[in-house]
Amino acid sequence: MSERLVVIGGDAAGMSAASQARRQRRDLEIVALEKGEWVSYSACGIPYHVAGDVDSLDDLVVRTPQELRDRLLIDVRTGHEVTALDLDARRVEVRDHRHGRSIRLGFDHLVVATGARPRRPDLPGSDLECVQGVQTLDDARRLLEFARGSRCEKVVVVGGGYVGLEMAEAFLRWGARVTVVCDAPQVMPTLDPDMASLVERAMGALDIEVRLGTRVVGFEEGAVQTEEGPIPADLVVLGMGVAPNSELAAEAGLEVGVGSAIRVDRRQRSSVDGVWAAGDCCESRHLVSGERVHVALGTVANRQGRVAGVNAGGGYATFPGVLGTAVTKVCDAEVGRTGLSEREAAAAGFDVVAPRIKSSSQAGYLPGAKPLVVKVVAERGTGRLLGGQIVGREGAAKRIDVLAVAIGQGMTADQLVDTDLSYAPPFGPLWDPLAAAARRADHMVDEADAAVHTPETRTARPGNTSPSS
Amino acid sequence: MSERLVVIGGDAAGMSAASQARRQRRDLEIVALEKGEWVSYSACGIPYHVAGDVDSLDDLVVRTPQELRDRLLIDVRTGHEVTALDLDARRVEVRDHRHGRSIRLGFDHLVVATGARPRRPDLPGSDLECVQGVQTLDDARRLLEFARGSRCEKVVVVGGGYVGLEMAEAFLRWGARVTVVCDAPQVMPTLDPDMASLVERAMGALDIEVRLGTRVVGFEEGAVQTEEGPIPADLVVLGMGVAPNSELAAEAGLEVGVGSAIRVDRRQRSSVDGVWAAGDCCESRHLVSGERVHVALGTVANRQGRVAGVNAGGGYATFPGVLGTAVTKVCDAEVGRTGLSEREAAAAGFDVVAPRIKSSSQAGYLPGAKPLVVKVVAERGTGRLLGGQIVGREGAAKRIDVLAVAIGQGMTADQLVDTDLSYAPPFGPLWDPLAAAARRADHMVDEADAAVHTPETRTARPGNTSPSS
Repeated sequence: MSERLVVIGGDAAGMSAASQARRQRRDLEIVALEKGEWVSYSACGIPYHVAGDVDSLDDLVVRTPQELRDRLLIDVRTGHEVTALDLDARRVEVRDHRHGRSIRLGFDHLVVATGARPRRPDLPGSDLECVQGVQTLDDARRLLEFARGSRCEKVVVVGGGYVGLEMAEAFLRWGARVTVVCDAPQVMPTLDPDMASLVERAMGALDIEVRLGTRVVGFEEGAVQTEEGPIPADLVVLGMGVAPNSELAAEAGLEVGVGSAIRVDRRQRSSVDGVWAAGDCCESRHLVSGERVHVALGTVANRQGRVAGVNAGGGYATFPGVLGTAVTKVCDAEVGRTGLSEREAAAAGFDVVAPRIKSSSQAGYLPGAKPLVVKVVAERGTGRLLGGQIVGREGAAKRIDVLAVAIGQGMTADQLVDTDLSYAPPFGPLWDPLAAAARRADHMVDEADAAVHTPETRTARPGNTSPSS
Repeated sequence: MSERLVVIGGDAAGMSAASQARRQRRDLEIVALEKGEWVSYSACGIPYHVAGDVDSLDDLVVRTPQELRDRLLIDVRTGHEVTALDLDARRVEVRDHRHGRSIRLGFDHLVVATGARPRRPDLPGSDLECVQGVQTLDDARRLLEFARGSRCEKVVVVGGGYVGLEMAEAFLRWGARVTVVCDAPQVMPTLDPDMASLVERAMGALDIEVRLGTRVVGFEEGAVQTEEGPIPADLVVLGMGVAPNSELAAEAGLEVGVGSAIRVDRRQRSSVDGVWAAGDCCESRHLVSGERVHVALGTVANRQGRVAGVNAGGGYATFPGVLGTAVTKVCDAEVGRTGLSEREAAAAGFDVVAPRIKSSSQAGYLPGAKPLVVKVVAERGTGRLLGGQIVGREGAAKRIDVLAVAIGQGMTADQLVDTDLSYAPPFGPLWDPLAAAARRADHMVDEADAAVHTPETRTARPGNTSPSS
């Protein structure tokens, strides 16, 4: 009899794992259990469906269950929710919602890819129908059904994470009055406050009201209650980040760690032999700090899923870790970030320089040139690049990948300055914005060195003296 | 008496050198000699002035001579052409065109930054006024004066280099009928033919006629003569690349190398002590092949100038080498390239895999998604990344920098696959196009390995099986 791999969860991590396991072993029986209706879809595309750019939720589906069955011989079962996990008996209890029955399914190998769910504050009214989170296509359908059935003239987003802000923009496109309420003194907690303020300004310029440092105390039909009074709301979107769906795993005895995410090693192995975890439900290792972190991103989920699948299929693969590289577009602001923020670097014990420079998306003399702000975080003394953030307009965000490669390779600021980056007037100034920021960081590192070691030999430096071409 | 640094040439390399030398030594007398009218400008911006995006040539100037005098105490002399160089006597002969006189100027240190000039074929009529090259602002003024004074209804660009194609687009904006004639069977010789054909198609779609494999045999008023007959032309723009202005240096006894470019070491030292060279007039070392090359790019000129200036000022700096990273925009096609092309890699003796993949500028389900083709060149056996090319539309070209960093760091294809690159639907598919191409290369490297070592153990691989998020 062939061995059986059971995969719990049918999105990015789960289906990547199942696919890779199939690549490893043609003889494996692979069963993928998904409690919702969809598998293998782009959750990140939901705001674009809500905004009207994408006609149907089905357009976000990468592979249907049938395609996965036909092409990869994966037994995909939607509407199947795993309700218990018995690691000693090597079996899962499954509720088949469509047929209203429960079944037991044995496994030889198990991949837990249960994902995450929107954080929901423990406040009066937080379970009201008008309070919606967005993480899965099923969530999205519920939210849209509610929104279409209500007036939806006033939308409040609680929290300033990526998805929340993308949803804020989406509802702006509906013509709604949109307010973003953050407990924190800034939006986008993965940015430093100075960079987040640029995003806040861009949102404000497009008539999204941003209320920072405002604590929500409850929800009711028609309003969000805050310490500063009520804010009218036909719909409330939760944008406070996500929590790992790790209860099932934890109850079964799998070790959990940061933020209750499932603990895994570099092969995505859980604390129990033959049981793997991947995606939003599990921990990652941060490549710069070396700390365990919980980073819920589609890119990470997909890659962790691949690693779990290769290993579950008997191969060998490792997941190197994360930088938390992310990009987003909020109104006409583009945002990119990678590695440690200045704040995170300080918390991790690094002594840093963190210059912020203004540059532009094109050569300054072109009429389409848009402002662009880059911040680079580098270790004082060594000049090692630790992180960076970009806020700008069109053509800004995706530049962050250059820094992601550089940080991943352990490059120093001066090594990035020495890199042969491209240039032409429609794509930026002669000194690439990231290289220019790295150069500033390199000078600051040098000056810091000079200040420590030989203050008397320093000479005054004329300003930025680079001619352009 | 203070020492004197003479810089010959006042654009990117020369003024970077002068500025950096000043940073090193406040006591140095610095004289910069420029035969033309302008210094410190963006030559790369010329096509955008011709196209009408930039009002005045003066808008392309980064620093005026007066600013350089006032802020950096650099004695900038325009209209001063160096006519001879006496390395034994350590002096230059200078023709001061404005005052119609010649002077001699001694130097302790010398930076040669004489740039390059458009290649001009040795053919009948190639000196006609209607045949114009574009390398300096003075060239641009001449060309525009001629173009404005002629009908300029029919423009022929001879050669398919970056500047030629940018000029083709610029004159399309004038409403001219534009023909590009290439001796070679493709445009853009720094691309492989398969990628260049995508650019040709984009140009054709915008009514630029592209005649490949067509040899020009002469020029006359109103026409370019080719082996296949005449092509009507009110204006001919030379786009056949550039040749280094190295005659002065060579006559004085400086060693020259590839394509007659001035030979320099990693500190930009020429073959004579105290004499440095930088920019389009000198050689570079290719970071992948290790060969000496002549790469005329503004980025390289600027960085080489900085290195020459630091060293001429008594400091220590080295120029690591080039990848030939370049981007351009031709009509609505964006092009990026770095490292070795497949052809160049083969010529350098590398055994390579060179997959080409189709991807898109945004998640495929978004209405703005544009096709994007990426080619990655990797060494067979090791998987080391050697080069890459991108042709696409908006949001395509600048992605090449990721590969430039990766190649500069000696990364392998699988290391790039493992890099934490960013993703959001407005910026591309979940698998970044470059990572996807690297993944394909990695598979091909593995398969090549498998074919060599253990053909009997290979299992069939289902197709691309990655769900997205």
